[in-house]
Amino acid sequence: MRQIRDIRPLKWEGDALLLLDQRKLPHKEEWITCKSYEDVAKAIEDMVIRGAPAIGVTAAYGVTLGAKELAQRAKDINEFKMLAELVINRLATTRPTAVNLFWALKRMKSIIDAGTNMEDILLALETEAKNIEMQDIDRNKKIGMYGAELLGNKETILTHCNTGALATAGFGTALGVIRAAYQLEKDIVVYVDETRPYLQGARLTAWELEQEGIPYYLITDNMAGWFMALGEISCIIVGADRIALNGDTANKIGTYTLSVLAKEHGIPFYIAAPSSTFDFSIKTGTEIPIEDRSPDEIVYCHCSDCRIAPEHAKVKNPAFDVTPHENISGIITERGVILSPNENKIKKFFEIED
Amino acid sequence: MRQIRDIRPLKWEGDALLLLDQRKLPHKEEWITCKSYEDVAKAIEDMVIRGAPAIGVTAAYGVTLGAKELAQRAKDINEFKMLAELVINRLATTRPTAVNLFWALKRMKSIIDAGTNMEDILLALETEAKNIEMQDIDRNKKIGMYGAELLGNKETILTHCNTGALATAGFGTALGVIRAAYQLEKDIVVYVDETRPYLQGARLTAWELEQEGIPYYLITDNMAGWFMALGEISCIIVGADRIALNGDTANKIGTYTLSVLAKEHGIPFYIAAPSSTFDFSIKTGTEIPIEDRSPDEIVYCHCSDCRIAPEHAKVKNPAFDVTPHENISGIITERGVILSPNENKIKKFFEIED
Repeated sequence: MRQIRDIRPLKWEGDALLLLDQRKLPHKEEWITCKSYEDVAKAIEDMVIRGAPAIGVTAAYGVTLGAKELAQRAKDINEFKMLAELVINRLATTRPTAVNLFWALKRMKSIIDAGTNMEDILLALETEAKNIEMQDIDRNKKIGMYGAELLGNKETILTHCNTGALATAGFGTALGVIRAAYQLEKDIVVYVDETRPYLQGARLTAWELEQEGIPYYLITDNMAGWFMALGEISCIIVGADRIALNGDTANKIGTYTLSVLAKEHGIPFYIAAPSSTFDFSIKTGTEIPIEDRSPDEIVYCHCSDCRIAPEHAKVKNPAFDVTPHENISGIITERGVILSPNENKIKKFFEIED
Repeated sequence: MRQIRDIRPLKWEGDALLLLDQRKLPHKEEWITCKSYEDVAKAIEDMVIRGAPAIGVTAAYGVTLGAKELAQRAKDINEFKMLAELVINRLATTRPTAVNLFWALKRMKSIIDAGTNMEDILLALETEAKNIEMQDIDRNKKIGMYGAELLGNKETILTHCNTGALATAGFGTALGVIRAAYQLEKDIVVYVDETRPYLQGARLTAWELEQEGIPYYLITDNMAGWFMALGEISCIIVGADRIALNGDTANKIGTYTLSVLAKEHGIPFYIAAPSSTFDFSIKTGTEIPIEDRSPDEIVYCHCSDCRIAPEHAKVKNPAFDVTPHENISGIITERGVILSPNENKIKKFFEIED
């Protein structure tokens, strides 16, 4: 077994949440201290932390911090519960696409709903947030194990965006599969899409691979198809922000294109995500809301020192796209792999009654 | 007819060649003065000017400047011809993929070979360079006319890289088709791929469209497929750096991916290029040399003020890819359109004997 590093994007300190400022990577490892739920909400909006599972965990600690603030102000348990709902609603507005956020907030809300006194609720919320964090790492390691089993002993894996330790509580989903395969001493080379406009691939995935000593090449997003045509890619693994009941998957913009290219070249295309990424309340990907982000991400260079487009350029900046389930070879979860996913298989896998 | 601006990337001044520094666009319109053939060679290498047809015209003026320098040093016509060959060889090393460079240098060489005294050769070279320049504009307007005929009255056109006035002597190839359609008062909206890593789309194509008042949206390269899936793109037009006898086409990295996406979505995919872009000496695209450029284009942000990848990141940076002729709906040339191109059709079109 090869050794790997234990990279974590957040640290809970009891009265504050420390977040590794991912906007500063790969240059600086700077930690930001969130002392209130509003600090946490802003950090998610401003992309101090990003990645669907990491957002869920962060929001859970945000509720914990918010509840502590409220406990000092609320005159009774009823006012506390009413105000706590506002805290949860605020945290829910930070990012619209990743469903893990709403999943984590729902878990926290059910603790509040069930509680009868503030002190017990505060303790239970903190415990629940820690559980969500620890369970995430545990699930990612299982995803890694199931994913690594799908791979041969020698693979050149293309990945998109960052789905590593930084995008989760630790270990990672798609990058977790790569990490697990590397641990198992498989012969792995990674092609990393830089992932415009926010460069999560160039800045974060490359940084994680560098930390682990896993060999990789950084490429621009528009090169992926060409390297497939040249026969240099044996497998594609990406993460997910929300998966519909039929397996349609919302993920970082550019994922859909990779799935079409994979089909064209007969390359397996896998999604790696914990089951909290499934949204069984929606039947197909057309119902997933897609976040539009600021044009500034595209018209300025990364350090914002220069403008790379004309003054009045009109820009479209959807942060995610939806890959139809027909283009997906398999969804790797902590409970196992759903090959060629569709509604029937997903219902069966999760034992969902009609 | 709508009015259009006469944008030119170069100006010949008799004893110097002025080049609009495309590295500074869209912020500044700065001109660089080339007084020697070496100045011209460096300007091509450093991407002061780029775009297959523009490189050809620039190199032709480079030979003219070089010949003027040699005429002062060479002791006789034989030494002049020998040294002139070195000048041509130097200019030929600047960029390997675009064939228009070699085509233009061949035209200039045949003038030198045929000449009998230096004075006449100098005059003939200057005239030939001017001819190459003027013929390029004339051809682009014809490409524009043939291309505009292929289009409906309402089109949303995706384009990649810059193939406009800046990439040619004037008017443009693929962007020339868009310009011509706009002149003819067609209802045109352009989706502009930013074109990583060098951002020719964001910096140059968006700038040209802004000058003309043609409506456009700037997008990142990895969004193109998603907008096709959403039904927002009706047609794709791109340029070419070299076209093999069978129609396989080398063009800016990312073009191949667009052709696969076009096929998947049933969207017409056109190449627009003058016939000087064809290289009849090679049968298929596999023989086209692909330029690898510096990793710095990828690991630094555009203004070079910040690094966007880890210190030791390994990078692949092919500047071009090859689109197989099967993926091309038509090649638009100044002599007409070759629909569903293949070796037989191209031979017939150009009246090439077996």
